[in-house]
Amino acid sequence: MERKSIAIEDTWDLSRIYANKQEFYTDLEKAKDLLSSLLQQKDSFLENDDQFLKFHQDETMLSRYIQKLHCFAHLHCDVEPNNQEYQTMYATILSFYDQVTSSLDFYTVMMIENSDKVAQYLEDEKLEDYRYSLQEVLRQKKHVLSQELETIVSKTSSISDISSQVFDALRLDYDPVHVDGKEKVLNSATLTEFLKNKDPKVRKEAYHNFFKEYKKFENVYAATLSGVMKKDAFYADVKNFEGPLEASLFDDNVPTSLFFKILEKANVQYRPLFHRYNALKKKILNLDTMYNYDLNIPLVQYQTKKYTIDECFDIILDVVQIFGEDYVNIIKKAREERWIDYYPHAGKRIGAYSSGCYDTNPYILMNFIGDYNSLSTMIHELGHSAHSYLSCHHQSPVNCDYRIFVAEVASTVNETLLINYMLDHASSEKEKAYFLYELLENCVGLIFRQPMYADFEHILHTWAKEGKPMSSQMITDLYYTKNAEYYGPEITMDEYVGYSCYYIPHFYYNYYVYKYTLGMTVALAIVSRLLNGDEKQKEAYLNFLKSGGSKDPVDLLKDALVNPLEDQLYDDAFHYFETILNEFEKIILDMSSTL
Amino acid sequence: MERKSIAIEDTWDLSRIYANKQEFYTDLEKAKDLLSSLLQQKDSFLENDDQFLKFHQDETMLSRYIQKLHCFAHLHCDVEPNNQEYQTMYATILSFYDQVTSSLDFYTVMMIENSDKVAQYLEDEKLEDYRYSLQEVLRQKKHVLSQELETIVSKTSSISDISSQVFDALRLDYDPVHVDGKEKVLNSATLTEFLKNKDPKVRKEAYHNFFKEYKKFENVYAATLSGVMKKDAFYADVKNFEGPLEASLFDDNVPTSLFFKILEKANVQYRPLFHRYNALKKKILNLDTMYNYDLNIPLVQYQTKKYTIDECFDIILDVVQIFGEDYVNIIKKAREERWIDYYPHAGKRIGAYSSGCYDTNPYILMNFIGDYNSLSTMIHELGHSAHSYLSCHHQSPVNCDYRIFVAEVASTVNETLLINYMLDHASSEKEKAYFLYELLENCVGLIFRQPMYADFEHILHTWAKEGKPMSSQMITDLYYTKNAEYYGPEITMDEYVGYSCYYIPHFYYNYYVYKYTLGMTVALAIVSRLLNGDEKQKEAYLNFLKSGGSKDPVDLLKDALVNPLEDQLYDDAFHYFETILNEFEKIILDMSSTL
Repeated sequence: MERKSIAIEDTWDLSRIYANKQEFYTDLEKAKDLLSSLLQQKDSFLENDDQFLKFHQDETMLSRYIQKLHCFAHLHCDVEPNNQEYQTMYATILSFYDQVTSSLDFYTVMMIENSDKVAQYLEDEKLEDYRYSLQEVLRQKKHVLSQELETIVSKTSSISDISSQVFDALRLDYDPVHVDGKEKVLNSATLTEFLKNKDPKVRKEAYHNFFKEYKKFENVYAATLSGVMKKDAFYADVKNFEGPLEASLFDDNVPTSLFFKILEKANVQYRPLFHRYNALKKKILNLDTMYNYDLNIPLVQYQTKKYTIDECFDIILDVVQIFGEDYVNIIKKAREERWIDYYPHAGKRIGAYSSGCYDTNPYILMNFIGDYNSLSTMIHELGHSAHSYLSCHHQSPVNCDYRIFVAEVASTVNETLLINYMLDHASSEKEKAYFLYELLENCVGLIFRQPMYADFEHILHTWAKEGKPMSSQMITDLYYTKNAEYYGPEITMDEYVGYSCYYIPHFYYNYYVYKYTLGMTVALAIVSRLLNGDEKQKEAYLNFLKSGGSKDPVDLLKDALVNPLEDQLYDDAFHYFETILNEFEKIILDMSSTL
Repeated sequence: MERKSIAIEDTWDLSRIYANKQEFYTDLEKAKDLLSSLLQQKDSFLENDDQFLKFHQDETMLSRYIQKLHCFAHLHCDVEPNNQEYQTMYATILSFYDQVTSSLDFYTVMMIENSDKVAQYLEDEKLEDYRYSLQEVLRQKKHVLSQELETIVSKTSSISDISSQVFDALRLDYDPVHVDGKEKVLNSATLTEFLKNKDPKVRKEAYHNFFKEYKKFENVYAATLSGVMKKDAFYADVKNFEGPLEASLFDDNVPTSLFFKILEKANVQYRPLFHRYNALKKKILNLDTMYNYDLNIPLVQYQTKKYTIDECFDIILDVVQIFGEDYVNIIKKAREERWIDYYPHAGKRIGAYSSGCYDTNPYILMNFIGDYNSLSTMIHELGHSAHSYLSCHHQSPVNCDYRIFVAEVASTVNETLLINYMLDHASSEKEKAYFLYELLENCVGLIFRQPMYADFEHILHTWAKEGKPMSSQMITDLYYTKNAEYYGPEITMDEYVGYSCYYIPHFYYNYYVYKYTLGMTVALAIVSRLLNGDEKQKEAYLNFLKSGGSKDPVDLLKDALVNPLEDQLYDDAFHYFETILNEFEKIILDMSSTL
């Protein structure tokens, strides 16, 4: 499909950001003027509270321009990658952003050097808006070096990302898979399909043909994976952190105890629940030996219906009723004001995201094809957009951006509410089983698998911190062991399991995966309480959505009644999983017995 | 063949280093004591000239132990890799060396901080032996940072070598080549053979099947190649060098003008000679279109005789007569004292090298199979060993080690003298043509191809210095252009030429390749003068061999009457090439016409 053949109401309206090219470049000029002004203030902005405020107001304004300009250019490029005008805008704003970053590199060091004075300014009422974000700057005190050292450390960025670059550049070819005597193409996308095949030979061949390539290049992957671990250890070390974990958690001001609590809950206390689920799969599928790659065989054969965009909105509006009229109106606005670019077409970026800033709507890009997954993606991305919309309308520009740490809550809550809605409206036991299975699989990926990843990643980080040399043998042996423990006694490990760690991009993201678990756990706890009619939880959750990035993430979650430092949250989430598992087990065993 | 079945006189005698394991560990203990002693002297060694001398004497002694221990362990491991006792010794000495390096990291910074005092001590007669090497330490003044900065820079070593690690780890598979309807295995070794095949289809298929794999992984190679360039640019920048070229030449104290002179002579002034040679090949082979991969087809079909070890020595002793009795006796000693491990056997390291230190003989490892190449390798390695022997017997332990920059002179002189000997003793025009062709091919690789590599490498380094982003497209386009200019108008570039840069490890060695050219140019000039009976040159050359590393490399070469900063050296070398080419052209055209 070509973009121009899509109805205008099914595309996003970016003219609300800038009506024409001229407006873009006018704002760019204003941004440049602000940068010059900030540079002129370098030697004076700490002199008194008025100059201090003026500097930060200018800086905030500059950020707003940059974000708006960037938003306009990148959204356009994602749907019209061959439009050279937008490409030029995009390159221009990226290069301007680099210029801003390097010209303002004096800022943090000067703030830290004058932290007593800054702390005093922050007591002033007129700086209230800036209090939290500037205290966040001061919190870095122990980890900001002298200007001379910071300059060298910042120069290392040119050499420190080779591991990730190589990982991204290394694309493998896979031998084909034989299905009913025919050769079929194997790649990341088709692997998932082959692993659902009823024929064990197909599953095994697909798994082997895929991961034997990772074994073939194991020394390259060992170099890049250990390389990225060494990079994180290097930065943690030179920036005076105890280790890579402490360095990574610092930005979100999260204690390491939270990280270990998630691992303890998922990998120790509640892991038997996952083993029980695996055992159930083995029983239903009636397999003597169940390999790790057999876990993807669908337990329920059911074809969901197809949805139009309007039908999706009808369902979504029904689902979000629970949040009240304000939230419902935001969803309506998304359709009316054309926040969303729905359909796939030639050249359009794949996947889905929500993106915007203080001075734009929270736009959504998706590739809608009308299946249940499209519906689920839509309510997921609308969760992000509603969160952004509420934050921007209740917080100042300085405090509206929420962090990744809490970003997946709103989207996952919506997605989970949707499944529950589908369960409530299921017209057969089979349909119900299908959605329960969907929910279970969703949960497993986020609350069981990611903490196993996090455990593995943490050990690699620890090795790097200790300067231990890391061979592919060490890495793959470790991953094999972690997987064997994870899947439990009912499941047999394939010989290639150890090499499958080389396929996962998230290990390059510096302690990222545990955030998925936190997001899902929080969402499950919230949803289970909302579905029980907990009004206090509803209010607290809506306030959380309005709070943006005005506090530390942990404090935001505490306010949302989901304190991630306490056991209750995890116990609620895993018990919710258990409830779903009980329900599913009952239905699926009934169904099997009636077959 | 098994090692134990080889006659004892054809293996090296390492018992001259240590008669048993006990002696190795006794020396290791002595080295550890010396390290403790040096650490105790940290705060006092700059106090007066006696303590200063004592510290350096201890340090020299420590170095001698380390070198001797390392030599013993690595030579043993290279012929008996499965002997765990030697592996343990090797790992032990490497880890001790790391410990020494990091415990003595205060040294350079303290020397620089006290450079006035050090300069004064060096005037003292009793420090004469140390004068040159310590002045070399002081010369680094501008490039040694504060201890705090040096510590951070030294920590970057953990993240800066990922590019080289990945390059080393990335092993490719190649599609087979069809020869006479049969599939033949393609790899680095067989590629060379296929490119000599008379069938143009075989040559093309081999070249394409080989280099299409580099194209397939071009983005990985672009990341690693640009990565290593960024690394060099980073270190040059933080260590206050003008650029990577200046940083690389600094250690040898070589002016950049020398680098550019080599490029100018080889890539501009004398390149027409190479084009003439290519045109001659095209004419003799009678090809309408000659591709770059066609240049390896042998112009002379001739089978050299087989040699025993003793026959090789007879020839070599004849060849080196020109240097007089002392040199001849060194070669005899090499046989008598069993410096050489001749034959290949299961597990033995491939290739050939000369290796030793002040307190050992200059041992040689080779894989002798009795062909002309074995003979040539033997005289080449004996060139290195004679150079080391003479240096160690005429210089103090501080000044005996010569640098890479001048290391290839002695070996290349010998190799070139050998070819001339073979020419003199040739019994037919065909044999003569064969050795002339050998010499020409040898020269082309070193005096024409390497300067083209150096030019390409220098442009990549310059891009990195300027922070220019480097895509594979940019890199391969550049390499294509450089090759087209290099091969000249008679030769047609294959579409894969641009990707062949990804195959070459030397681009990871930081301005290494021009040193090959210098070594060969110097050797050609020396040989051509020696063969003209130039007695002054002979004396100067022998003195050069005795001078070790007692002066700057350029000064050593000046003393050897081959001043690398003057045109004369290059003009002599390239004219010598021209003479050989003239002679070869005459013979080969005569031979063709009589066919």
